[in-house]
Amino acid sequence: MLPFDIREYQERLQKTKERMAEKNMEVLLVTDPANMNYLTGYDAWSFYVHQMVIIIIDEPQPIWIGRYMDANGARIKTWIYDENIISYPDYYVHSEVYHPMTFIGEILQQIGHGNRRVGVEMDNYYFTAKAFMKLQEALPNAVFQSGDLLVNWVRIVKSDQEIEYMTKAAAIADNAMTHGVENVRIGNRENDAAAHIVYHQITGTEDYGGEYTSIVPMIPSGKNTGIPHLTWSDRPFEEGDSTIIELAGCYQRYHVPLARTVSIGTPDDRLARLTPIVQEGIQAVLEAAKPGATCSDMEEAWRKSISRYGIEKEARLGYSVGLGYPPDWGEHTASLRRGDTTVLEENMTFHLIPALWFDHYGLELSETLRITKDGCKTFSNYPRELVVQHPFLLNQQSGEIS
Amino acid sequence: MLPFDIREYQERLQKTKERMAEKNMEVLLVTDPANMNYLTGYDAWSFYVHQMVIIIIDEPQPIWIGRYMDANGARIKTWIYDENIISYPDYYVHSEVYHPMTFIGEILQQIGHGNRRVGVEMDNYYFTAKAFMKLQEALPNAVFQSGDLLVNWVRIVKSDQEIEYMTKAAAIADNAMTHGVENVRIGNRENDAAAHIVYHQITGTEDYGGEYTSIVPMIPSGKNTGIPHLTWSDRPFEEGDSTIIELAGCYQRYHVPLARTVSIGTPDDRLARLTPIVQEGIQAVLEAAKPGATCSDMEEAWRKSISRYGIEKEARLGYSVGLGYPPDWGEHTASLRRGDTTVLEENMTFHLIPALWFDHYGLELSETLRITKDGCKTFSNYPRELVVQHPFLLNQQSGEIS
Repeated sequence: MLPFDIREYQERLQKTKERMAEKNMEVLLVTDPANMNYLTGYDAWSFYVHQMVIIIIDEPQPIWIGRYMDANGARIKTWIYDENIISYPDYYVHSEVYHPMTFIGEILQQIGHGNRRVGVEMDNYYFTAKAFMKLQEALPNAVFQSGDLLVNWVRIVKSDQEIEYMTKAAAIADNAMTHGVENVRIGNRENDAAAHIVYHQITGTEDYGGEYTSIVPMIPSGKNTGIPHLTWSDRPFEEGDSTIIELAGCYQRYHVPLARTVSIGTPDDRLARLTPIVQEGIQAVLEAAKPGATCSDMEEAWRKSISRYGIEKEARLGYSVGLGYPPDWGEHTASLRRGDTTVLEENMTFHLIPALWFDHYGLELSETLRITKDGCKTFSNYPRELVVQHPFLLNQQSGEIS
Repeated sequence: MLPFDIREYQERLQKTKERMAEKNMEVLLVTDPANMNYLTGYDAWSFYVHQMVIIIIDEPQPIWIGRYMDANGARIKTWIYDENIISYPDYYVHSEVYHPMTFIGEILQQIGHGNRRVGVEMDNYYFTAKAFMKLQEALPNAVFQSGDLLVNWVRIVKSDQEIEYMTKAAAIADNAMTHGVENVRIGNRENDAAAHIVYHQITGTEDYGGEYTSIVPMIPSGKNTGIPHLTWSDRPFEEGDSTIIELAGCYQRYHVPLARTVSIGTPDDRLARLTPIVQEGIQAVLEAAKPGATCSDMEEAWRKSISRYGIEKEARLGYSVGLGYPPDWGEHTASLRRGDTTVLEENMTFHLIPALWFDHYGLELSETLRITKDGCKTFSNYPRELVVQHPFLLNQQSGEIS
């Protein structure tokens, strides 16, 4: 049932412990659901309550602690022995009196790790200010230190198996994009196009199913294309609209994001002029991406390419991508931006998204790529173009999935 | 463009300020995306970076602070004046050097609120341990206090407009359940059924579109029905399987959850025996739910009803529900459990989910209800039964949405 060989999990654990040792850390409390999954295989929508995986530097097995009703999930989804799966009673859930971190602190105390040097993921969504406060109260003799992104940095170089999963995710992304684009047409609303995309994200292929993505499709249209993080409305598409589709395919929680821009009818002049500039910029980045170069080098290639056209982009150009849970598929480690000195290695994977947003319009063309032995390779086969949808393509298949 | 009349937002703000005054709080930093939406209308998938709405007790307008690329969204989605929309530069995003809370602290300092009594949502997913640490560093003269759940408690009683949105969400939930059930059949995989559910959640009705739900559909089947928070796999359904479907309809971010259990072919004896017990228990709870009674009374009605059959349930029976963002549609205020003394009022809304899980099977039948003037009313019209799917209903519409 595990998606990876147990030796791969043990290797990940080993690398994590090496990083812990470098920081003189004895215990690491892993609360990021992606990191929990990475180290143990745990996968369930239980991260809306407090839970964690505990790594102890001198213990061979991680410990999973969560809500009692989720312990069965931990038993079947992880390689952790049953005796290392510990659960707290339901009255700890969303209570103003009891807090799960008090329980967890007591367990750590009981098993003799209450006074050790304990790393915590300080800026993780699922490690709240109160969680930290309650842990500190429960473990007055522990020495806390930041374990933020420690496991994330282990994740940055993918194994061959992880690359294979991302390749499968890419096929889902391409298929979802095809159906999304097809449904950006007069007679449909933004939400209809989104519904088709998500249907294909989840139904996947005949050979393997797809999963929910860490971010839902974003599909702003018309004037809203200048606003990157709107999801969708039920506004009907109109002739002359442009629409941005940003989505991902997901397999075994590994994501391959992909963004394209669709114009219904003749594209706006500004989009038509911008597209080749962005295509050229992307090409320049892909040529700069190879082992030994840095993330900053990739950004520089982009900046030099577009500056010839008088364009600047404030936002970062992309980020390390892979395993993820809501609300983000980014790994929060390397960013493709000026000053990021991360040295590229084979099997690092990035979402390169040189989106340009203006007040009332925007353009997104993106690629997810992996660093290869001597360069890089994109995952998607979807044409890297501004998609032009014929305005008279009406929806004649209402009620059918397409 | 706002989903509520501006007077409704001002009323919400007023109630929030009253609660702040009771706690002697001068500034409230709202980081829960649902609370941000509730007070201002802000709605975008931007909560994967730090952002907040600031309520200042003696200022008429909230302040929105977020990432620069999301400021356009705040301008069109909220009733906040443009001058109160403040954004931080992109180099603050996922950086090991810069933190958005430092920026936000500096702004508070600059506008003269750096030394006030500041409430923070201590246990909110989007208020991390590091966020609090950085705020404390940036505002050494502020007095911090817990503003946890302060806005959530204002949200517990819904307005008529909110109830109308939930009624629309219920129609989506019922429709998604109909299509989900229809697709739990031999020839499909769990993910295929999930894909049909999500398609209908998002496409909604002809009159209005649906939205993404704060929790994806959970659809464990076979032995996994004993594990509540698994999402789906690509395992094909088999004769004799039972499957739990837990989903919601969502409209304007208001959720109406609904759970049912489906059996392919003759139901397992244990499920067949449990179903009338659970139905009777639900009926007892619905009869106990009325203004003046407490959440604890609702739980007691359930406990008395099922105890006659020798059954006990550890988990809480339900929770306050409504506006939400991933990872949860629960409001984290009142729970239907022993000892919760919340007094029921008209237009409170709850997800009553008396699920029973055992090691290798489980049963879920749920209802979302609102407290009425003299009792309660469920939102859904879906039959409250164990659904039996004919095992020879094959999928003959492959490639079509149903």
